[in-house]
Amino acid sequence: MHSLHFTAETSSNGVVERDFTVGEVPGVLWSPESGGERAPLVLMGHGGGTHKKAPAMSGRAQLLVTGCGFHVAVIDAPGHGDRPRTAHDEREIAALYRARAAGEPEGPIVVRYNAHLAELAVPEWQATLDALQELPEIGVQGPVGYLGLNMGTAIGVPLTAIEPRITAAVFGLHWPDLLAETAKRITIPIEFVLQWDDEHIPRQSGLALFDAFASREKTLHANAGKHKETPRFEADSAVRFFARHLGRTVSPPS
Amino acid sequence: MHSLHFTAETSSNGVVERDFTVGEVPGVLWSPESGGERAPLVLMGHGGGTHKKAPAMSGRAQLLVTGCGFHVAVIDAPGHGDRPRTAHDEREIAALYRARAAGEPEGPIVVRYNAHLAELAVPEWQATLDALQELPEIGVQGPVGYLGLNMGTAIGVPLTAIEPRITAAVFGLHWPDLLAETAKRITIPIEFVLQWDDEHIPRQSGLALFDAFASREKTLHANAGKHKETPRFEADSAVRFFARHLGRTVSPPS
Repeated sequence: MHSLHFTAETSSNGVVERDFTVGEVPGVLWSPESGGERAPLVLMGHGGGTHKKAPAMSGRAQLLVTGCGFHVAVIDAPGHGDRPRTAHDEREIAALYRARAAGEPEGPIVVRYNAHLAELAVPEWQATLDALQELPEIGVQGPVGYLGLNMGTAIGVPLTAIEPRITAAVFGLHWPDLLAETAKRITIPIEFVLQWDDEHIPRQSGLALFDAFASREKTLHANAGKHKETPRFEADSAVRFFARHLGRTVSPPS
Repeated sequence: MHSLHFTAETSSNGVVERDFTVGEVPGVLWSPESGGERAPLVLMGHGGGTHKKAPAMSGRAQLLVTGCGFHVAVIDAPGHGDRPRTAHDEREIAALYRARAAGEPEGPIVVRYNAHLAELAVPEWQATLDALQELPEIGVQGPVGYLGLNMGTAIGVPLTAIEPRITAAVFGLHWPDLLAETAKRITIPIEFVLQWDDEHIPRQSGLALFDAFASREKTLHANAGKHKETPRFEADSAVRFFARHLGRTVSPPS
């Protein structure tokens, strides 16, 4: 088992940002500047082609840390951010660009590439969670949430299905093809985001993935607009979702 | 034109509740106890078989008044609350109870009865809004929202389609049959609530009504559960929706 090494620390607007590595995997942990007190942890998975500190990640982290006092961690997915690309990564990315240039559907390529990355990323996330829970300000007792759209859902669904430490999750913006069967094993509270006029993911496909979750409490948020037009207020909604489900009360003994 | 007459006033938990009449129509206006300042108005339509002060109405009013400082008005629908039932009302209600007892679909009866009530209620709402806007604490300039599910949607959709003073609305939990064509003329921001496992309204019917709105900004909130199981957090979500669109910030509960 790898432990967590902090490699850099900065601080602004009430948030401490600490870069870390767990083995070969680079990550970032955002925490309240006030510090000290133990608080719930939210794991976030970034989208395809982006990285751990992309604005969609740092912006949501700011809301989660300052709004609820949570710790928020993101790691670079394989082939993303500060991590090297393999020959397989290069081939898949080239295939995606060719499809895009030719006006062909991106779905089949994204679905298979994301599934490949998820196989690598799930054990990395589990090792990262092990290491994060050794930090005194996180600990092994506290609740853990997961937030990830697009590729963050492709990785988060199989992670959540086998990871009992995750007790609430926000997913969305993905095809059901290789995920719906896995989603059927997930029973924790879910908030699921999709775009009603998504030009890549057919409406019925998006709805089918939401439908697959076995959760007794699940909420679909479908917004008018195209794939990349998820409104900003969904980030605020995710904060309230985690506030409801991760609370700040002491977890019952396990 | 009828003006508004206040008939009773009470006050509790930061909210002033004033009963009123506009012509023959009884209503209630909830306002901030601090009073005085001009504030946006939210009209709320109650569900079938209930009335202007049912808990779903008074509870949401409490959130809207104390959270955002809004004024909130509800009137009894024809045949509901303090209003007399006609022979037609009695026949339709009996038909509904017969269908329910026989395990037959309620939809066809509810749809036609609600459409009949909406024809009567829309001009009543317009007269009420005229009268409310004569109050100095509301005025003719301020923004107006509308919130109504079930029968509140059956009345609110045709009202909103012809009433340019309404600039944001929360609808949901209704069949599209007699409403979808009217919804196509509505372009204001919409939040639309439905139940994913509604035993009365087929899923595709609920989605079809959401789809019909021409609004560039519209959000669907679909929650797991049956017709009457809309979660309480949707009331909080409506408060934030109106805060965004009617121009107020949400205060945390005191």
